[in-house]
Amino acid sequence: MKFNEHDAQILRNIIIHRRDVRGNQFLSTPIDDNLLNQLLYAFEHAPSVGYSQPWQIIIISKQVIKQKVKDIFNSENKIASQKFDVERSAHYQQLKLEGITEAPLNIAIFYKSSDTPVLGQTSCKEVGVYSVVCGIQNMWLMARSLNIGMGWVSILDEEKVKQVLSVPSELQLVAYLCIGYVKEFKDVPDLETLGWETRKNRAQYIHNDFYNTTENE
Amino acid sequence: MKFNEHDAQILRNIIIHRRDVRGNQFLSTPIDDNLLNQLLYAFEHAPSVGYSQPWQIIIISKQVIKQKVKDIFNSENKIASQKFDVERSAHYQQLKLEGITEAPLNIAIFYKSSDTPVLGQTSCKEVGVYSVVCGIQNMWLMARSLNIGMGWVSILDEEKVKQVLSVPSELQLVAYLCIGYVKEFKDVPDLETLGWETRKNRAQYIHNDFYNTTENE
Repeated sequence: MKFNEHDAQILRNIIIHRRDVRGNQFLSTPIDDNLLNQLLYAFEHAPSVGYSQPWQIIIISKQVIKQKVKDIFNSENKIASQKFDVERSAHYQQLKLEGITEAPLNIAIFYKSSDTPVLGQTSCKEVGVYSVVCGIQNMWLMARSLNIGMGWVSILDEEKVKQVLSVPSELQLVAYLCIGYVKEFKDVPDLETLGWETRKNRAQYIHNDFYNTTENE
Repeated sequence: MKFNEHDAQILRNIIIHRRDVRGNQFLSTPIDDNLLNQLLYAFEHAPSVGYSQPWQIIIISKQVIKQKVKDIFNSENKIASQKFDVERSAHYQQLKLEGITEAPLNIAIFYKSSDTPVLGQTSCKEVGVYSVVCGIQNMWLMARSLNIGMGWVSILDEEKVKQVLSVPSELQLVAYLCIGYVKEFKDVPDLETLGWETRKNRAQYIHNDFYNTTENE
């Protein structure tokens, strides 16, 4: 299949208009099975090391489970806010950082390692988890193209989440996602608008042939 | 910005027609700066935890450097082939698993941790690396939409690669990518065509509300 500039431009638009969505943006409108299937379809077509497809996915729609995960977030977030200096900590506490109970759908994504050697994973074990993350990014973009918002909650105690979802300890929690329709997609990431962090420029991270070219050539 | 079904279908096509490309598929046609810029642009618009943008990127075009990395691959791959049983090992040795010297462009991607606490990374340090992987997947899809192939080489000794590229030890190698135009994009992943691995079905990895629902409800 050959794509053209029109196709590339659509992808570019989806990529740059994707946002991390939090609870103050989600609508309660349900996500029907057809839409969920489309998100999963995008996930499943992720690249995976040695075609190992090392993912386990839990679709959470019960409010009682979401509330338990929200409780885990609340206690982790309290600890997190104390890790910043006084000024940043005050700012941090004003931020809405998740949409667990507001989003109609939560999806927990895990990495499950293989019992046998995996092609491509013999030198670096971490690439197994990276495959799962590629699936998450596929799903995130697919959601955006369907005008559905997604938020990634990482301020969670992994062991407690696994306990709530009856997940065996050998699985690794990669992401806890909140999914739903949104009031609007912001043009710019919240953390940029709110002055928490700024966009870097390429001089800060692009190098040619060697790291820190100026010192090396 | 609101997307429609036409847009979603284009993204779906890009996602399902993305392939991991190896050296037997790459053309030597150079990738010009405009195309490279488009790939980097897609990468930079990845989600990153706390908007930390924790990536360092080395663009490699010198053949002498590629050859050094290829040598690292060769010795790692010899070790890797011995990790499988006799039959699989014979099969493994027939597979072409990288395109380091054939691809006009190589890109090495690293994770660089922050000296100060990062919002969202306080409970789980690994999410920093996951941000980098999201960027890689963005770039992979962008490349496919521009009819450019990309391959991810993971059979490498990280420390040796960092030495060749003069990268400080505190950075973490996330991916070594081979990029170039291709003869063709295969319809199906090579590892499926060649009988190495099959596509899983959803019953093997989808759960509702709890892990392994049948046991829990």
